[in-house]
Formats: sequence, C-alpha cells, structure tokens
Amino acid sequence: MQIGIVGLGRMGGNIGRRLMRGGHQCIVYDHNPQATEALAKEGATGARDLGDLVAKLDAPRVVWLMLPAGKITEDTLADLQRILTADDVVIDGGNSFYKDDIRRAAQLREAGVHYVDVGTSGGVWGLERGYCMMIGGDDAIVRRIDPILSVLAPGRGEIPVTPHRDGRDARVENGYMHTGPVGSGHFVKMVHNGIEYGLMQAYAEGFHILKHKDLPELPEEERYTLDLADVAEVWRRGSVVSSWLLDLTAGALAQDGQLDGFSTEVADSGEGRWTIEAAIEEAVPAQVLSAALYTRFRSRDAESFPERMLSAMRFGFGGHKEFPVK
Amino acid sequence: MQIGIVGLGRMGGNIGRRLMRGGHQCIVYDHNPQATEALAKEGATGARDLGDLVAKLDAPRVVWLMLPAGKITEDTLADLQRILTADDVVIDGGNSFYKDDIRRAAQLREAGVHYVDVGTSGGVWGLERGYCMMIGGDDAIVRRIDPILSVLAPGRGEIPVTPHRDGRDARVENGYMHTGPVGSGHFVKMVHNGIEYGLMQAYAEGFHILKHKDLPELPEEERYTLDLADVAEVWRRGSVVSSWLLDLTAGALAQDGQLDGFSTEVADSGEGRWTIEAAIEEAVPAQVLSAALYTRFRSRDAESFPERMLSAMRFGFGGHKEFPVK
Amino acid sequence: MQIGIVGLGRMGGNIGRRLMRGGHQCIVYDHNPQATEALAKEGATGARDLGDLVAKLDAPRVVWLMLPAGKITEDTLADLQRILTADDVVIDGGNSFYKDDIRRAAQLREAGVHYVDVGTSGGVWGLERGYCMMIGGDDAIVRRIDPILSVLAPGRGEIPVTPHRDGRDARVENGYMHTGPVGSGHFVKMVHNGIEYGLMQAYAEGFHILKHKDLPELPEEERYTLDLADVAEVWRRGSVVSSWLLDLTAGALAQDGQLDGFSTEVADSGEGRWTIEAAIEEAVPAQVLSAALYTRFRSRDAESFPERMLSAMRFGFGGHKEFPVK
Amino acid sequence: MQIGIVGLGRMGGNIGRRLMRGGHQCIVYDHNPQATEALAKEGATGARDLGDLVAKLDAPRVVWLMLPAGKITEDTLADLQRILTADDVVIDGGNSFYKDDIRRAAQLREAGVHYVDVGTSGGVWGLERGYCMMIGGDDAIVRRIDPILSVLAPGRGEIPVTPHRDGRDARVENGYMHTGPVGSGHFVKMVHNGIEYGLMQAYAEGFHILKHKDLPELPEEERYTLDLADVAEVWRRGSVVSSWLLDLTAGALAQDGQLDGFSTEVADSGEGRWTIEAAIEEAVPAQVLSAALYTRFRSRDAESFPERMLSAMRFGFGGHKEFPVK
Repeated sequence: MQIGIVGLGRMGGNIGRRLMRGGHQCIVYDHNPQATEALAKEGATGARDLGDLVAKLDAPRVVWLMLPAGKITEDTLADLQRILTADDVVIDGGNSFYKDDIRRAAQLREAGVHYVDVGTSGGVWGLERGYCMMIGGDDAIVRRIDPILSVLAPGRGEIPVTPHRDGRDARVENGYMHTGPVGSGHFVKMVHNGIEYGLMQAYAEGFHILKHKDLPELPEEERYTLDLADVAEVWRRGSVVSSWLLDLTAGALAQDGQLDGFSTEVADSGEGRWTIEAAIEEAVPAQVLSAALYTRFRSRDAESFPERMLSAMRFGFGGHKEFPVK
Repeated sequence: MQIGIVGLGRMGGNIGRRLMRGGHQCIVYDHNPQATEALAKEGATGARDLGDLVAKLDAPRVVWLMLPAGKITEDTLADLQRILTADDVVIDGGNSFYKDDIRRAAQLREAGVHYVDVGTSGGVWGLERGYCMMIGGDDAIVRRIDPILSVLAPGRGEIPVTPHRDGRDARVENGYMHTGPVGSGHFVKMVHNGIEYGLMQAYAEGFHILKHKDLPELPEEERYTLDLADVAEVWRRGSVVSSWLLDLTAGALAQDGQLDGFSTEVADSGEGRWTIEAAIEEAVPAQVLSAALYTRFRSRDAESFPERMLSAMRFGFGGHKEFPVK
Repeated sequence: MQIGIVGLGRMGGNIGRRLMRGGHQCIVYDHNPQATEALAKEGATGARDLGDLVAKLDAPRVVWLMLPAGKITEDTLADLQRILTADDVVIDGGNSFYKDDIRRAAQLREAGVHYVDVGTSGGVWGLERGYCMMIGGDDAIVRRIDPILSVLAPGRGEIPVTPHRDGRDARVENGYMHTGPVGSGHFVKMVHNGIEYGLMQAYAEGFHILKHKDLPELPEEERYTLDLADVAEVWRRGSVVSSWLLDLTAGALAQDGQLDGFSTEVADSGEGRWTIEAAIEEAVPAQVLSAALYTRFRSRDAESFPERMLSAMRFGFGGHKEFPVK
Repeated sequence: MQIGIVGLGRMGGNIGRRLMRGGHQCIVYDHNPQATEALAKEGATGARDLGDLVAKLDAPRVVWLMLPAGKITEDTLADLQRILTADDVVIDGGNSFYKDDIRRAAQLREAGVHYVDVGTSGGVWGLERGYCMMIGGDDAIVRRIDPILSVLAPGRGEIPVTPHRDGRDARVENGYMHTGPVGSGHFVKMVHNGIEYGLMQAYAEGFHILKHKDLPELPEEERYTLDLADVAEVWRRGSVVSSWLLDLTAGALAQDGQLDGFSTEVADSGEGRWTIEAAIEEAVPAQVLSAALYTRFRSRDAESFPERMLSAMRFGFGGHKEFPVK
C-alpha cells in the first residue's frame, strides 16, 4: 500500500527502506532535502514539504511520523491537522510520551483524523531484523495499516515457539502487538525502555565486580584477572543470563576489553524517566529501574555537590571543633 | 574417558546422562541407592559408597561432585581426601563459595590431589542444551578433563558469531571457559547469578508497572488493561530486552497471566548474597543487584517490623501528644 | 493583627490557638460547624461560611487556608477569588503541590489578590513548639504578614546558635524563612518531607538489623537480644544519629518494644512522590529517597505480583521441562 | 579509679582528659612519645611502653585501648595477653569488628583476662559533650568499670525525658548502655554508623534537589535559587528533620554555601560495610543503608568502567551495524 513518511533519520530512513523492500510505495519528506533525495534514489517519491507529501498521497492517507519526541513532532502534527482530511491516519512511530498521544488523538479526532502510536524497538538493526512494534489505537485502524506493520515486523524467524499460545493473536508472534487504545503502544514501549535500563545496569554492575577482582588490596590468592570478553561470550551459550544485550556486550568487549573508547557520561531519554513517574503514579516499587536511571544521572554530574555535603558532615563530627554546640 | 560422579540429583543425574551420550564411562554414587540404581539402568556403573567409587576408577582418577554447597560437599571432600591418591582430580561442580574452593584446593594439594571448581549454569535445560561452564584450576588439569567439559558444554550451536574473536580461546565459543586459578570458576558463576537476580527484578518491576496500568485511581483515559503474555511474547522478537529469561517469562504468562500458582515468597541462594559481599570488598557500587536481593528478603518477611516502626514514627509526629518534648 | 482561618482540623485549629495566644484576632470557618464553634469558645470569631468570613475581615484581608491539598483547597480558592478584593492576601498553609501554587497565584493576581504559600512542619507539636515555616511569595506581602508568621514560628528557643550567620536573615533563626517566589515555600517543604522519608527509612533498616540479631540461624555466640528501646534512648545522648525522629522512636519503643500496635501498611502523601519527580526533572540521583518511598508502596501491596513473577522465572529455569527451547 | 590508656590520638587523648577531669588517674601510652608526653603534662602518668604501663597499674588492672581497628589493635592485644594477669580488664574502645571481639575475648579468657568492647560515638565533640557508649561484656565487669563509663558519658543533660522509661536501666539515660555479651557493643555501634550513612545520604539527596532547582532547563517560573544555609537553619527549629547532623550541615553551609572546600571523594570505614554484611546474614532488606554506602564507593571511582559499559551497549543497539546478528 501507499504510505507517507515524515522524518528520514536513521530510524525513518530504514523504515522506508524496509517498507519498499516489502513492496509498499513510500512518499517521503525530511526537512533536510538531502535526506529526502537519498531515499528518493532508492525508489521512494520525494516530497518538497508536508503539503506536497499530503498532496501526493491518495485519500484516505497514511502518514508515518518518525521524528524526535517533543516540539518537532508536536509542530508537525499541528501542521498535518490543518491539511489532512477525514479518515486519514497519522502514525507516530517515535518515542512520544503516551499522555501526549492521548491529547493529540483527541484533537485530531475532531477533524476525523485517526491517530495510532507505535512504539518501535530495534534501533539500527531494524532494517535487517525487523522492528518489534507496540501499537495503540482503534482496532479498525490498526487492522487497516496491517500491511505496513506486518512488513516492518521481524516475523516468526527461528525463535523457539512459546507453548500455550494456541488461539492467541498471531500478530504477536510475528513481532507486533496491538496493545490497546491510543497511548498504550508508547506506554508499553516506555516500560520496555525502563526495563532495558535495568537490564543494562545489572550487567554493568556484575562486570564491574568481575573487573575489580584483581584489585591489589584483595588477598593475593583471592585475586583474579578475568577476561571479560570471554566471560560475556561464554554466558551467551546456555547460561541463564543470555540476552541480546549480552550479545552486544560480548561484541564490544571483544573489540576493546577496557572499553576505553566509550563515554563515561551516559545519556538518558524520556522513557526511563517516564517509567519511574508511571511507577510512582501506580504506587509500584521500582527500585532497580530507578537505580539504573540514577546511575546515568550520576555519570553526568561533574559538580558532586552531594558528595561534598557528605564530606562537610564528616568533617563536622570528626574533624574540627570550630562549630560550637553550646 | 572415565569419570566418577558423586551426587545424582537433578543436576548430577543429567550431567551423567549427557556424559554417557558423549561416550564417556560414568561410575556413579548417590547416598540414595535408588538414584544410583536409576542411573545404572541407563548405562552407568553404580557404586555402593565413596570407597567403592574410588576403587572402580583407574588412577589418575577424575571425580565430579554435584552436591549442595556447604556441609555435605565439605564432608565428602574430607572423605575423598583420605582415599584419593596423588594426581587424582576432584571437580566441584556445585555452587560452592569460591573462598571455600581456595581453602580446599590448598588442603588437597598437600596430598597431591588436584582441585577444579566448575560453575555450571543451565539448570534443568542442561541435558538438552548443554551446560555453560566457568572453570577454575590449573591449566594442565583443566586441559586433562577437556573431553568431559567439551561434551557437557552446549557447543557453538546456531548462535550468531561475535566478531573480533579471532585468535581467542575457542573453548569459550563452545560454552565453557577456563576463567583462571582455583575459585575463579565459582566466582564468575556467583556474579552470573548476581546478574541473574538483577535481570529478573528488572523484568518483574516493569511488568508490575504494566499490570497496574488498569488501577481504578488512574484517570480513565490513561487506564490500559494490557495482555502481559502478549507483551512478553512480542518483546522476544527484535526488541532490545529479548533474553532467555524473557522467553521463560513469556511461557509462564501464556499459561497463567495472573501467575496465581506461584509463590509470593522468593528464595535466594548463596550466590546472590556473596555477590554483594564481593562488591563491598571491592568497593564497587551494586545498587541494582542489592535491590534485587532485598526484594527477595522482603518477600519472606511476614513480621514487617520496619514498616511498623515507620508507622510508629508517623504516629509520633502526626497523631498524638502523649510524648512531651519539654 | 486580624486574620481569617479556613479549615480547623488538627493543624488549622492549633494555628488559630497559637495566633490568639499571640494576641491576634482570628475569624474562623470550618465546613463542620462544631469545629467553628469549638474555636469560637476559645476566643475566635466564628463565621457561617466563606462569605461571612470575608465580610467580617477588614480590607486588605489576610485569609489562611489550612485544608487538605487537592480539590477542596482548589474549590475554596475559586470561591475566595470571587469574593476577595484587590490587595487581599490568601495564604495556603497546607501541603499543596508547588506547581499548583504557581498557577493559582497567577489566577489570583488577575484580581489583584496576593498569594503566599507556607510549608508548615511541626505536626501536632506545633501548638506548643511552634511551626517551622517555609514561605513563598512576594517580599512585600511576606513582610506584611510577618506579625502572624513570627507568632506561629518556634522562635530561637534554646537551640545552639550556628556560627557564621552574622548579617543573615534573622527570621530564619526564629524558625521561618522566606524561601523565594510563589511556590518555593511548598517546594522546600516538599523536599523536607522527602528527606523525612529517607531519615525514617534509615532508622527503620538499622533497627531491623538490630532486632534480627537474635535469629536462631545465626551462630550462637554471634546472637544478641538487644533492647531496642534502650538503644534508641542511648543514641539520643551525644551520638551522631540523634534527632527528633529518634526521640519519637525512643518514645514509641519504650511503650512497646515490639511495636505490635502499629500498622504494617505505611501511607505516603504527595510530597514524597513529588520529591522524586522533582529529582527526575533535575536529573538528580535520589536513591535513598526513592527507596524510602518504595518501601511504603511495597508495604501496601498484598498482591505480590512481581514476587510471583520471580518465582515463575525460577521455576522456568530450575524446576520443570515443559517449555521447550528447541 | 585508676586506668591505663593505650593510643592517644584525637579520641584517646580526649578520653584521658575527660577521665582526669572526672577525678580518675590515667596511666597513658602512645607509640608516639610526644603524644604520651603531651598528656603527661596535663596530669597523666606517661608510660614508656606497654610493659611499663602494665607495671604502673595496680592489679586488677583496667586498660582502655583506643587504637585504629585492625592490625595494630590485634598486635597490642597479643602483647597485652602476655603481660596482663588474671582478672585484669581490657577495654577496646575503638571501631573493631564485633566478630573480632568475640574471638579475642575467648583468647583472653584463657588467661583469665576480661574483655569489654565499647562502641564510642561523639567524635571530637566528646570531650565537651561526653561520649555515647555501647558496651558489650560480662555484667560484673561492666559494673566494675562503671566509674569510668559514667564519667565519659554525656549524662542526662537538658535532653527531654522519654516517657514510659520508669524501672528501666538508668545508665541508658546517662548516655551509656550495657548492650549484652562481648561484641554487642561494637555491633550496636556498627549499626549506628550504618544508620548515620543513611541519614547523611538522605540530607545530601534532598539538598541536591534544592540546589538544582535553579537549573536553566527548568521552566522559568518553576526555577528557584534557594539559600541552602538558611534552609538548613530553619529546619533546625521545630521541623521533623531536625537532628545533630542537620546542625552540622547548617554550620558548614553558613560558612560556605557551595561547600567548595570539601572533597568530592567520600571515605567509608568498616562499619558501613559490616552493617550491610550483617543485613545480608540476617536476610534484612537494607536498601537505604546500601545506597548510602554505594554513593561513597561511586564517589571514589575515577575509572567509570560500568558507565562505559552502558555506553558501549547503547552504541551497540543504537549506533552502528558492525556486529552482525546472523
């Protein structure tokens, strides 16, 4: 089928490519004309601007937004709301906050335009592996765009079948899920990322313990110099902690066992934060997910004010007599 | 080659089976004669007691212990120390504390007996999938028992190859690793289990947030009733959080979405605790691994003393006037 | 001076009493006429309703709201906005969210009405000890209501003087602080409560460790049965952990060393949650404050879904073979 | 009475001074002769070495050790064991691990020498304020040294009386407590320090949130520049979070609101670590106390390996395509 794609960055461009490989016709637009042109060379129809993109699509249209969450997505939706017509579908495939989805869907609904939110996991691997998608929206609309979703999804592949799934939604085993009403796709994707933070932190702490097992202050017979690349690799095979994140870790460590080339400052995106806020709204303890987020915050704090405050207190009770109690 | 196996529980029995399938000759002993007999029926040579087992093995012998960590392993080693002879090899394949390995190896060394510690992951799946093994001991001895290890290991299977591993130890890609001196096998396995706790807790917290997204106190349009079995399943395909633990979770949820049949009290074994102690010895922050352990502690605390203490304090400053400040 | 008080619960009633003791004239109103009447008997002027209260006050009026945060405060402010006149002052002394303060102040400003937010600590002890107050609002208005604030505040008392405070705002040493613009009073009070949660949890964990030092599974010579009431008491004198919360704890434990009468379910109010949200907005790690909040969440979770999920995973890898991997 | 003091550092010297002020006769020794001489000038009897100290004391002797925990305490006890005689008393007033107390007491008992462990809080303030003491040992021996303990203790002071303490041990209200058998004094002191870490961290996190409320990325109307010195000061008066640690914090902030002079690396002593190990032995969740300890570990980690590992994983799934999945 025909689809418009707005935003041709790493994710959006590959989504277009995978859709074209699957036989779909893509009208594409990026505010950077070179990005538009590049995809046009691969078979897409380039558009000059949003209006041109909408004009080149047959009604009822399907427009997939793949833009950074926040102002640019917000502005583009406002523009689209003015030029789309009733029964068109807008898909937000980015990392929007699910409460924004709910608000936007209500606004677009006034113009008869449908809104679908798609949480998309897979990163740069998606072009080859397919995208794991969590989709929120009305059932009829999600069914309408199924040709697109089924092409983007990874499919069943060679992944072992889970028993007891007879009679369940077959789309799920193909790697995409209609999670519920508008917002629920991004909500599930948000929690996915929250879990991702926790998993990553668990590995990071464990490997840290392995790495420091050679500290000179340990008793000599209890000191080991462990080959972390080999540990990660061996755990990929038959161990309880095998995972895709471990695969990536094994790859990184095999290249550089000290990981010297990587930043000590770790960014966090909205999802990790929103996950904690959702936990708090639901009164759900989320100690591990919080700790993972806080580690990233800490990694970017060069000021170290709380640590200096601890030092000041220690100094206060242990080190001097200047502050009189009476 | 020939090997003695002591301890024929779920793990030990299957290890024997997998070794026999691989062409090895197993002399087996369990303090429960029925367990010994059962394996004998499958082709092993049963032994009446430790002495009989040792007598039936050709020197230099190889004896694999697969016993619960602690007193029983300790006692069996003491017995073996008396009857084994120089150049024999004892392998502790259980979950012993690595500092115990170091002490025991030193003791056995006095009698010329070699000690190898093998951390074994794979659980009940090992018979079919093979066992991921982390092995501590002298290089020559680990090489000597390679025929056993290579049969127990999962092998390369269809797991994608990690790049940049040229020239590295090929055993690792077959799922077993000589981690270093005595104790290092169990040390690495211990941290493996610590990570396992953290991963499990990350999933548990995330699914808890998903599950409670239908709480009546949330705004109606932000309430979703999510199918957790489907969420787990869809994440198995192309998502960043895919893992073997997620595979197991998807299976459990497909059978019973409420997990009503499972205990609310979660046991912990030594490894989770020792991992935190190792972190503290090394001054490594282990917030996530600790939180995972503490959740298990908390799950078994019916007394709730600290919670009552919080309530008492709240009552103190908010609720009554009985305690005079002046 | 003259002041109207709306809301005569435990906090509001005592605030009126302390103000009257300090020579101020109080016009009071509670939606429960008995509460109004009770305070009228102690010297206040009772009002039938908000309109009556406003009518009985000379312009420019000062009205102190001491109501539960949320809808009732919101509604009362809406009512007041209709009947107050330019240059009147509304004080919200409750536990409102500081972002609500900012919004409300902007609304009232349109009618020329001033808004001051007062975070009030002291609980039921405030009548005797005075209230520690954190005050947000315009400087001129905060100065205008100083006669009220200075009477409510604890004053310098016998608390040792902090050195290096020469030239600093003297109000602070009397126990009240103009923290900054509107909202900042409640913001500082919110963080105060966040810290309070953390302090309480630190004591609760420590006493838990002391209490369980008599567990039968510990080695006999390392088992102690500690008198927790005495421990709390001795720490009140010269130790680094002495605090008012410890005073309260010592009192509770002296009455009932097991705290059997206290709830195992611990409530949390908005401030603890908002503190974490503020930390996340600022990218500040707040591990301890979060852990304290989560403990309270956990204390009220009878369902134990995440724990059952951990059990399900453990069962998956350790206990059965039903879920096929191949 | 007469007492020998070994170790005249900041703590030991002041203990001697306070005992002399209380009318006791002190025979003192420090391996640094100048320290011995200094105290001798203040009225103590200096000793050349341990033997001289023991010789100058009348039997049955009382010797107070105030030495760093670990080897030096261990060695000194070994030396004393050789020269003390039956019914003498050794007091370890330092920060020894309670399990070491238990072992040492058993050794000394063979020579008929009594051992008392005293956990001492109060730091440099103890000379004036007195020392809060937690004391483990045999009842008769603790009674025998009561004249010493009662002089070192803070006494009742002006601290408000806790109700419901009638009939309880009066020593406790004077600031010293016989906690139980040998080791229990240091055990209680250890947990005291664990709590101290948690309290400090709670304040540090809260003030961090206050401090960063002026971040430029926050909405302008929600930005406050808070005077932290004033906040700490105001909370000292009538608020729920008032404490001695807050007094110290207020003092430090009044001197330097940015705390620029203080170290960003925070040391930790044995007690914080042992507290977590005790929690683990007892299966007690200690999330807050652990988080406080880990923050200190983190403050000293310049290598940031776990953070680089997180970056490597993020790069792996988001940034490049080098690692092939098939």
